[in-house]
Amino acid sequence: MKARVHITLKNGVLDPQGRAIANALHSLGFDKVGDVRQGKFIEIDLKESDKAKAKSEVDQMCAKLLANTVIENYSVDLVE
Amino acid sequence: MKARVHITLKNGVLDPQGRAIANALHSLGFDKVGDVRQGKFIEIDLKESDKAKAKSEVDQMCAKLLANTVIENYSVDLVE
Repeated sequence: MKARVHITLKNGVLDPQGRAIANALHSLGFDKVGDVRQGKFIEIDLKESDKAKAKSEVDQMCAKLLANTVIENYSVDLVE
Repeated sequence: MKARVHITLKNGVLDPQGRAIANALHSLGFDKVGDVRQGKFIEIDLKESDKAKAKSEVDQMCAKLLANTVIENYSVDLVE
């Protein structure tokens, strides 16, 4: 089973990386670009066939290592 | 309209960041974890209501700035 994890900064947390991308896009002439937010995307191969177990395991990984839950949100999608 | 862009390393390109995450997860006791790949996730607010135009604009952004197409793949999802 594959877990696809998205880690994004919470709303209200300043995202300098996203701001830099927005500025770069504007200076390249993409003037329809508004706000840009950059996050992380992690794909994990899991040797686990039970979906509920896999979900709870990945939640633990996010809480313990992958995401800083003070300033970041995460979401998990499981794919067979 | 919002564009959600995923940028991932192509298959076969070494991903030291993903490898480090896998090692850290193993040492935390998550022994069902196999391969891990880390990518980027970028959310762009676009002042453009035409889906086809938005898609082609974001494709250009990826080719020109966001992705290094020699070693990275990108995919674009548009959300209203």
